[in-house]
Amino acid sequence: MDETVQEFAFEGMLAPSVPRPEPRFKGHPTYNFIGGHNDPEQIPTERLAQAAARALEKHGRKLAMYNLGEGAQGFTGLREFLCAKLAAKRGIRCTADDILITTGSNQGIDLVNRVLVQPGDTVLIEEFSYAGAIGRARGSGANVVGMPLDSDGIDVERLAAILERLRSSGVTPKYIYTIPTIQNPTGSILPLERRHELIRLAGTFGVPIFEDECYADIVWSHDAPPSLHALAPGRVIHIGSFSKSLAPALRVGYAVADWAILGRMVAMKADGGTGAVDQMVAAEYFGAHFDPHIQGLAAALKRKRDVMIEALHEEFGTSADVWAPEGGIFVWLKLPDQVDVRSLTAAALDAGVAFNPGPDWACDGEAARSYMRLCFALPSAATIREGVAELARVCFEQTGIPSRSGNRLRQPLPSANG
Amino acid sequence: MDETVQEFAFEGMLAPSVPRPEPRFKGHPTYNFIGGHNDPEQIPTERLAQAAARALEKHGRKLAMYNLGEGAQGFTGLREFLCAKLAAKRGIRCTADDILITTGSNQGIDLVNRVLVQPGDTVLIEEFSYAGAIGRARGSGANVVGMPLDSDGIDVERLAAILERLRSSGVTPKYIYTIPTIQNPTGSILPLERRHELIRLAGTFGVPIFEDECYADIVWSHDAPPSLHALAPGRVIHIGSFSKSLAPALRVGYAVADWAILGRMVAMKADGGTGAVDQMVAAEYFGAHFDPHIQGLAAALKRKRDVMIEALHEEFGTSADVWAPEGGIFVWLKLPDQVDVRSLTAAALDAGVAFNPGPDWACDGEAARSYMRLCFALPSAATIREGVAELARVCFEQTGIPSRSGNRLRQPLPSANG
Repeated sequence: MDETVQEFAFEGMLAPSVPRPEPRFKGHPTYNFIGGHNDPEQIPTERLAQAAARALEKHGRKLAMYNLGEGAQGFTGLREFLCAKLAAKRGIRCTADDILITTGSNQGIDLVNRVLVQPGDTVLIEEFSYAGAIGRARGSGANVVGMPLDSDGIDVERLAAILERLRSSGVTPKYIYTIPTIQNPTGSILPLERRHELIRLAGTFGVPIFEDECYADIVWSHDAPPSLHALAPGRVIHIGSFSKSLAPALRVGYAVADWAILGRMVAMKADGGTGAVDQMVAAEYFGAHFDPHIQGLAAALKRKRDVMIEALHEEFGTSADVWAPEGGIFVWLKLPDQVDVRSLTAAALDAGVAFNPGPDWACDGEAARSYMRLCFALPSAATIREGVAELARVCFEQTGIPSRSGNRLRQPLPSANG
Repeated sequence: MDETVQEFAFEGMLAPSVPRPEPRFKGHPTYNFIGGHNDPEQIPTERLAQAAARALEKHGRKLAMYNLGEGAQGFTGLREFLCAKLAAKRGIRCTADDILITTGSNQGIDLVNRVLVQPGDTVLIEEFSYAGAIGRARGSGANVVGMPLDSDGIDVERLAAILERLRSSGVTPKYIYTIPTIQNPTGSILPLERRHELIRLAGTFGVPIFEDECYADIVWSHDAPPSLHALAPGRVIHIGSFSKSLAPALRVGYAVADWAILGRMVAMKADGGTGAVDQMVAAEYFGAHFDPHIQGLAAALKRKRDVMIEALHEEFGTSADVWAPEGGIFVWLKLPDQVDVRSLTAAALDAGVAFNPGPDWACDGEAARSYMRLCFALPSAATIREGVAELARVCFEQTGIPSRSGNRLRQPLPSANG
């Protein structure tokens, strides 16, 4: 290397609003309750290996072409599997031509925003919702209005009032983003009659529904009603994912929508296709094993859900108001109003506990200051119990809450009392 | 379905500047000379199947976590392979910490533009260059200035004059984008002394070099000089891909850069990681078979290159000015000035021939109206010969050029002469 070559001071050349460099990755915390990781015990390693080998033997030559030579909507084998699955499980009637495979469902969210939203537009999102959906809407310049939730999902009466109020201000929102089947983060399932009412409101007010069913494969309580898309295909943009049903490191999601929307999402995708082997593995494995895989996974996750809820009850008692989920991988809970969970983050991490603070999962962050989201899919049952106990200890040390864990009355720390 | 549910007229709801829906995919033309497809005969189907199975047996459980639980820079096994490959083949000294795996090298181009470019900035790009790089720079609002090329790549003397002129106008370009090793589309290799001069200019004028080495693995003529990054790591952002060396349907590329840039690319990537099985397959297969694979692929592509150049010579004679490539998968050629290749596109497609019009691969589209790019990797030798003959026939029918193909004097069509 030429010794006279000096490095640039790149800091002076950056575009505005560029973030700081990512902190170097230092591994994961011991008690990892953040994000949407899944259960490593439920990854069918051997069968995925066989599926990958079979798929590559059958379709390997196609790898020589962008998009496997099959066009920008994605691997035909995967779209055909999805048609059958969506019909059988979610009541959706579509053909492979109506489906776009996306590079994760986040790409679907990106593309819907790019097709519909311009700065200054309004969108409706459940008051507590997926951080990535809220962030992408805001990143598109949208004004995000929260829709009130109860334990059955969107409160459609209050939504009607919000839509009336917006209409009287001359505002037609660009979409109603909802996760109706295992809502993220609250874990609810929107009942059928609310689904019909939501569709009616969409028609009355001329607002498309943007339905995210990332968690709909993992349901315990009862059979979920049909997807909104099944009930009104012309009013609903539907997206989903294999991240929860199979594995999040596979970057494979999908969208189903009217071609006026979907065709534009295809035109704007411009990523050279979604990873081909990821798509092939999902199609080959799920083509043979979908039902038993989902049954085993759902049962395992329900056991972990039960462990976490029991641990929360044990450690936090009445201090934690837990939204018991009807499926999925998360518990959403509220601590007393005087607890701002953001004040716990650093001390919790010091104790090896990571959680998602409620404000990140809410349209009105400040109003969600006492909430947190805990993912129970990744850690073992024992780790869940230990982690929740550690979280309660940290929370008590920082806030005096919960004052009682299990049958123990917690003693204030000397330092906390001066 | 509720019969009263009406479909939306989505057309009235779109964001501005949204494109028309993508035309429905109708299959590929018979003589497919467009894009960057590769040779299906060179996809090692059986070995990829074995590699995928082995990798999933070893690492399958990691699929339960986003990014395989290894952080947002990508699969460690693939980054370690890249360190060894980049050191051995391109002279680049780096560690796995200096590499970001991207979802195709296009994502690298996107991210570099997002980190460095704001609307109104100027960037320098070779006068003929990758359409995706020109388009992404313009999409970021950049003013694209072309750098003159000859058969050895960038004319560095004329570049110095351009940099002087820009400096006298108070303009410091945000980057110099170059494909120094098998330039796309001209197929040249920038000689070592020009590389040193380019690095000197970058330092003098304070302009980072953005080096794209997507084609550098496929070189025939001679050993290419070290990459620009090897010569001046602090001045160069380096990207590459597995699309040409292995398969374009795998969406796996990479970037190597100073952490001031790379750390911001990581922070802005936000796609939940690059497809995990695609990454694993590339690492496992190339970890064992890189050198023999590349030797076999390069030899096969050189045979096809020779077939295409012979066919162009046979069919177009002196009417085609061919830039014979020193590697890669493309031939760039110029027809006489009076031929605007855009006027041939439709008739060529009717005859089953698809080519990339020069204007799409040029900073000044109008000045490239007589150029076209032909990819020879996908079709068989026989298909190349037939397709070039069809292209010559169509070109003659539309423009009267070439008037002679092989030993045949072409007769004007009666309809063309009235």
